Amino acid sequence: MKITLEHVDDLARGAAILGTGGGGDPYLGALMLRQALLDHGPVDLIDVESLADGDFVAPFGMMGAPTVIVEKIPNGAEMVAALRTLERFRGQDARALMCAEIGGINALLPLVLAARCGLPVVDGDGMGRAFPQLQMTTYHIHGVPAGPMVMADEYANTVLIESTQSSEIERLGRSMVVAMGGSTSICLYPMHGRDAKRSLVRGTISLALGLGRAVREARSGTADPFTALLGYLRGTQYYQHCKVLFEGKTVDLLRETLGGFSLGRLVIEGTGGCAGRSLSLQFQNEHLVAREGDQVLAIVPDLIAVLDASTAEPITTEGLKYGKRVAVIGISAAPIMRTPEALAVFGPQAFGLRDPFTPLEQLSECTPESS
Amino acid sequence: MKITLEHVDDLARGAAILGTGGGGDPYLGALMLRQALLDHGPVDLIDVESLADGDFVAPFGMMGAPTVIVEKIPNGAEMVAALRTLERFRGQDARALMCAEIGGINALLPLVLAARCGLPVVDGDGMGRAFPQLQMTTYHIHGVPAGPMVMADEYANTVLIESTQSSEIERLGRSMVVAMGGSTSICLYPMHGRDAKRSLVRGTISLALGLGRAVREARSGTADPFTALLGYLRGTQYYQHCKVLFEGKTVDLLRETLGGFSLGRLVIEGTGGCAGRSLSLQFQNEHLVAREGDQVLAIVPDLIAVLDASTAEPITTEGLKYGKRVAVIGISAAPIMRTPEALAVFGPQAFGLRDPFTPLEQLSECTPESS
Repeated sequence: MKITLEHVDDLARGAAILGTGGGGDPYLGALMLRQALLDHGPVDLIDVESLADGDFVAPFGMMGAPTVIVEKIPNGAEMVAALRTLERFRGQDARALMCAEIGGINALLPLVLAARCGLPVVDGDGMGRAFPQLQMTTYHIHGVPAGPMVMADEYANTVLIESTQSSEIERLGRSMVVAMGGSTSICLYPMHGRDAKRSLVRGTISLALGLGRAVREARSGTADPFTALLGYLRGTQYYQHCKVLFEGKTVDLLRETLGGFSLGRLVIEGTGGCAGRSLSLQFQNEHLVAREGDQVLAIVPDLIAVLDASTAEPITTEGLKYGKRVAVIGISAAPIMRTPEALAVFGPQAFGLRDPFTPLEQLSECTPESS
Repeated sequence: MKITLEHVDDLARGAAILGTGGGGDPYLGALMLRQALLDHGPVDLIDVESLADGDFVAPFGMMGAPTVIVEKIPNGAEMVAALRTLERFRGQDARALMCAEIGGINALLPLVLAARCGLPVVDGDGMGRAFPQLQMTTYHIHGVPAGPMVMADEYANTVLIESTQSSEIERLGRSMVVAMGGSTSICLYPMHGRDAKRSLVRGTISLALGLGRAVREARSGTADPFTALLGYLRGTQYYQHCKVLFEGKTVDLLRETLGGFSLGRLVIEGTGGCAGRSLSLQFQNEHLVAREGDQVLAIVPDLIAVLDASTAEPITTEGLKYGKRVAVIGISAAPIMRTPEALAVFGPQAFGLRDPFTPLEQLSECTPESS
């Protein structure tokens, strides 16, 4: 299929829901994608199976604190510079671009770069959500190295980082993000078509598009957008288990930009059916855990999304404010994200949490009736 | 000529004098060079005129705080990794290596890498001394870009930095030095033979070798090593003006490792002919200014060297201690280092000093009689 202007808002909305609070403000990404499609025409969204095994493909995105990304907008030239530097080092031109994460701005920017460079984008990503660190991908879990990675800032300064350890690329890259002002364009996990086929979380761009559309159509009709949202997710191959965890008003927010991350905690006071209760969320770019007192309601890598209580519009962690009426949704991560190998890389312990990973559907009922 | 085992100590000594306190401990460099020559045989020292205009050459060295370099010794593999990454990005193999600075360990390490890779080294450097920042070179002043620069750490993690601004490469590289533990191997200013010919401070490796030899021969005979040292410098094309500025005992030392630099201040209490007087030195890796009260006795880019008072053995800034008997030497920088264009890059103001640059020979008499 072709991604055109009419898809932009739906894709941005769906990606922000799957971004579980992170991935960067999709509003900016939508503005950039709209302009890129106007300037360069539609972008081909292709199936990973259409790649030849030897084709060179690479994911593209932003690295840094979402709190900075909203104020330091890419101009586009640095995105091209990152790709060209990687191509030059590899000695091979890219056949297509990919997403590192189907979250927030990072679901949209590969399409922006693709429009500028006349390349297609592979339908899928490396997480089925968003994560704060670059080794937290199914690419990594399938043995695809994160490097060489190229970072580029708004002056088109470029930095190529190579290491046999993907965690070293994260560590060195994170310090460079800070030196580059808190956010940068990155092109990483350069891989061949054969590696993309075995490591991709498939179809997540069209899935995000459908998710955003379902919410919009419910709003413009008489349906409840939350019912539409949960109904759509239950029909997917990854996100069958999902539910509204909590409804209430945001009453306390602690947020700091530290070491290239946006770290914080949100407290929500229950309203309606949740009156008299209180939920706390802890986040590192993305939401990590939802707790009611000592009880965990959902925990990483399962997805936690904060949505506007009336419209189901997603709110990113840098967009959180005091006094918002919100609903918090829990969504099961794709099965590939819940294996022991996967949990070792992006389970609760990878974020310093003591709680073990427990699947959302074991923490509470996720049947349609319970939501 | 060929650099062999018999040259190592003289070269290390001469380079440490020209290193003006910085460039990293030459003792380690001498150990590494001795081993490399034993393992791989002599290294050809070639004249820059023997390069073809299209030959690819690159300087090599260490970047970081000398206080760290003495404790975090290169294993050699990272040096090769830095060169190979640069060659791969350029798509051309190096014809020869060069020195970025003829100071301390950085005068010796290009020879170590050359021995390992079977390459010759061009006789010369980009400063005629040592400086703490990588844009402070005659290469830069002649319009040769510092990038792409490759940095490599002891795990052979490699980082390639490219920018149109050499000062940006310094800034981004410095933050990466800190992430890499305070010191790294770097390969930078990749250039063609034609650029080397117009930007090199020529002949400084053989000059350092001769300087170190003159001091050694004086010691082993009956001559005064300081007389031999100053006499040798006066016979060179760069360092005609030189003198003993001060003699005394080090009585106060402030030194901190900050932002990838070794910063500090040394106070020397006069002895002998200087009794009753006091000299202070300020340094950033290298000595920047020598002051007696408010009066400047020597200032960057002129060279200031601290030597053992009896043997004339140079003492690097990280080797300074309380209670040493020292002599402080002032040496005029090469004429190319004193032009307005050069002073804008590495004159006193580039280091935040308020004093204007005044040539050593105008600050005090530099005739043989006065020393």
